[in-house]
Amino acid sequence: MYKAKIFVNYKPSVLDPKAQVIQNTLTRLGDDNVSHVLVGKYFELTLTAACQAAAEKQVARICDEMLANVNTETFKFTVEEMAVAE
Amino acid sequence: MYKAKIFVNYKPSVLDPKAQVIQNTLTRLGDDNVSHVLVGKYFELTLTAACQAAAEKQVARICDEMLANVNTETFKFTVEEMAVAE
Repeated sequence: MYKAKIFVNYKPSVLDPKAQVIQNTLTRLGDDNVSHVLVGKYFELTLTAACQAAAEKQVARICDEMLANVNTETFKFTVEEMAVAE
Repeated sequence: MYKAKIFVNYKPSVLDPKAQVIQNTLTRLGDDNVSHVLVGKYFELTLTAACQAAAEKQVARICDEMLANVNTETFKFTVEEMAVAE
């Protein structure tokens, strides 16, 4: 069993109104020492695979086809083998 | 400068239809070896603070008050000091 941890974020060139609203609200409420806000999506997938490389290849395809919009978003991920109870 | 990396996820007892839709779609498209999907939110805040402990205290308060709905969501975060160019 493998666990994939996937981060999907907007490309830096894409305006993110949600992050802007959070930063404006923080400033208005007195947390004006926060200078940058990034808002992204986080996914965890648990999957079976023949080997680490096969799991990574499948996760990359799933990100590319389903989880990220590659026109406006970038993704990165890690795949770890999970400890299995004997 | 400190960078906070924040994960906000539904509590395990809360149904997550978005995760269910992703898992169903993966199964339908042939990726039926994916046994669990978690969908969460990811935030990065860049902030100044007097010390690590002060930064962590402030980030915990921001999560509690703004970024997470503590009735249905849990949050966890890490705070790291950022390397500053001399």
